[in-house]
Amino acid sequence: MSDIVAMVEEIGRKAQKGARVLAWADGDVKDQALLAMAEGLESARGSLQEANAKDLAAAEARGLSPAMIDRLRLTDAVIDGMAEGIRQVVALPDPVGEMSDLRRRPNGMQVGRMRVPLGVIGIIYESRPNVTADAAALCIKSGNAVILRGGSEAYHSNRAIAAVLAAGLDRAGLTGDAVCFIDTTDRAAVGALLKMDQYVDIIIPRGGKGLIKRIMEESLIPIIKHLDGICHTYVDSKADLAMADALSFNGKMQRTGVCNATETLLVHQAVAKAFLPGHVARLQKAGCEVRGCARTQALAEGVIAATEEDWGTEYLCATLSIRVVESLDAAMDHIDRYTSRHTEVIVTTDHSRAMRFLREVDSSAVMVNASSRFNDGFQFGLGAEMGISTDKLHVRGPVGLEGLTCQKYVVFGEGQLRT
Amino acid sequence: MSDIVAMVEEIGRKAQKGARVLAWADGDVKDQALLAMAEGLESARGSLQEANAKDLAAAEARGLSPAMIDRLRLTDAVIDGMAEGIRQVVALPDPVGEMSDLRRRPNGMQVGRMRVPLGVIGIIYESRPNVTADAAALCIKSGNAVILRGGSEAYHSNRAIAAVLAAGLDRAGLTGDAVCFIDTTDRAAVGALLKMDQYVDIIIPRGGKGLIKRIMEESLIPIIKHLDGICHTYVDSKADLAMADALSFNGKMQRTGVCNATETLLVHQAVAKAFLPGHVARLQKAGCEVRGCARTQALAEGVIAATEEDWGTEYLCATLSIRVVESLDAAMDHIDRYTSRHTEVIVTTDHSRAMRFLREVDSSAVMVNASSRFNDGFQFGLGAEMGISTDKLHVRGPVGLEGLTCQKYVVFGEGQLRT
Repeated sequence: MSDIVAMVEEIGRKAQKGARVLAWADGDVKDQALLAMAEGLESARGSLQEANAKDLAAAEARGLSPAMIDRLRLTDAVIDGMAEGIRQVVALPDPVGEMSDLRRRPNGMQVGRMRVPLGVIGIIYESRPNVTADAAALCIKSGNAVILRGGSEAYHSNRAIAAVLAAGLDRAGLTGDAVCFIDTTDRAAVGALLKMDQYVDIIIPRGGKGLIKRIMEESLIPIIKHLDGICHTYVDSKADLAMADALSFNGKMQRTGVCNATETLLVHQAVAKAFLPGHVARLQKAGCEVRGCARTQALAEGVIAATEEDWGTEYLCATLSIRVVESLDAAMDHIDRYTSRHTEVIVTTDHSRAMRFLREVDSSAVMVNASSRFNDGFQFGLGAEMGISTDKLHVRGPVGLEGLTCQKYVVFGEGQLRT
Repeated sequence: MSDIVAMVEEIGRKAQKGARVLAWADGDVKDQALLAMAEGLESARGSLQEANAKDLAAAEARGLSPAMIDRLRLTDAVIDGMAEGIRQVVALPDPVGEMSDLRRRPNGMQVGRMRVPLGVIGIIYESRPNVTADAAALCIKSGNAVILRGGSEAYHSNRAIAAVLAAGLDRAGLTGDAVCFIDTTDRAAVGALLKMDQYVDIIIPRGGKGLIKRIMEESLIPIIKHLDGICHTYVDSKADLAMADALSFNGKMQRTGVCNATETLLVHQAVAKAFLPGHVARLQKAGCEVRGCARTQALAEGVIAATEEDWGTEYLCATLSIRVVESLDAAMDHIDRYTSRHTEVIVTTDHSRAMRFLREVDSSAVMVNASSRFNDGFQFGLGAEMGISTDKLHVRGPVGLEGLTCQKYVVFGEGQLRT
């Protein structure tokens, strides 16, 4: 066994010990620990920024782009933000221990379900070091231990943050074992982690498609993942066109580099002529590049011809593709073919079309008359999120505290025997 | 691309088409189709038994054991049982479309969740051909399409059953595409299926540990699995000993070859002397082999010394291992170390010990004063089950119709924009 594998196994064992302590820690003990973690970050500001300086120097030496370097930087505001984020998690209700669906069986036995932590969560992430604190806080609140593996470019920063968080857990009388950090930049450590299903219950990758595909291929451990966000807004023939204009514009332009931004606008042919010229002009005026099908090009100025590839592209910038469709069914067919199953919106005043779209479109969030930008843990009222799952198993959409737990069956008997 | 891969991809595309039809078929249409499937099996009795005769002849030629051959046999009773099983599924409520947790957000938007099918479910199973009908019925009722891949020893039987089921779907005006059968015994087909994550949403393996481990290693698709059932019954110092005697005996001996049978009995040292001699004698009289720790051996006659290996063994026969423990904590430590996270039972009259055990023991079902044999879909009131999951993600314990669905977010807006 290589040194790396041995080291990662040692971390696995430690995290599993930590998970046992966390699993049934009382809610207020976990909250005290989270507050100690937040205070720890604030008072370690100096040493965190010292560690961060090493990453920044290395990034500059490697010639990373200014934007990339900016994402790495632990400014005072970023440190304050991490502490504030942890305090917001403190304010959320503890999901662990909730009992539901308790029913009496014909033999008098009560059968129900109890919400419990998953155990050990492995998080593999790229860039931004604040993820270290955000992810750890959600795992601790939900009673899990976490193994953190950040990108090599933020190695020193992540390491320093994780150490502060573990110390906060220790200070609060829980255990630092519940926040483990893989203390090497060797890529073999990721491979070892992904095979360690005896210690790790779930892997959550956060990063680009390349990272996630590699993890899917290698992992023996179940994954909760976000692949990409090719989100659609469909303007129905029965849409309120002023509302459609506002929703499409907000879906695309309110923030463009995010997974819940609208990437393709579908427009029913009956309203295309009334809707598209003005809407396209408004988008273009705001700096949005518009690509479209031939019918869109015929109706609006300055539209670039969309290629087949456009329909399957997550632009993550101020570019929108537009297609005129013949019917609601054609819109749903287009979505079914090209969607990444993240977020889809219908704009319509027709009840039965709205309900058909809601039922039949299979994405993590399906919306009637609302902006695609709302698919988000804070906006949905989950309080915080670990990411947005485009998987179908276990949890779809924003992954909040509940997504980091599972339900076991509990049975209250009085000596019942099976016959 | 090999012919096998091309063939399996063709099946994947077909199943995905079938899944679209099934996803929003009305409940009574699905029920009519299930009834047509049940009737189809009954009226195809002759041709099913003809196909089955080929499998039986091949099994005899290969020298399979009489017990194995018996499991393969499609007797009239087995065919009646399949049809009756499908009719029981008809009687269950349709899980699809249920909306829950609808809450109004501060901006007036309503956010909730809707239960929807998973899509395409791949089932890889060994032996008993009746699984073909049972599994397909649960998938259809929950709005999914299914791809069936049975063991080669039941190839002709499975193929004939699947064809009858698909014909029933067609007759009822749905589509036979929703029940697909991998029409080859070539093992490469399984490898191809496990890589087809563009068409298959989930894999459910049913069979021995070897099959399941191979699937875990190869699959790119999420899995719901049952590994093994090393279940414990713990007799607390505060137990009603007559109840403990009945529950341990029922847990082990009511049926021994099943995953929810008790394999290890843990006994608190304070009651070991009063409990074990009589209980061990009763087990032995009923033909159960008892293995035990040194303290068990000292208290009861004819107890074989248990080895370390015994604590981690799923006997699946009339053998029980017994260990005397010093405390509830020692019992929970033993369970944590050796359990397969299937089912654990505490026998006690003490409320706080019962609740600690319920909370802290992390298995798919944790029971107070009830037989481990109750961890079962029918017994828990789910109506039917696809198996019992020892995984933590998505579904733990019996996998009923709900376990074959997921929840997406639904949003009802009136033009809300994100700011």
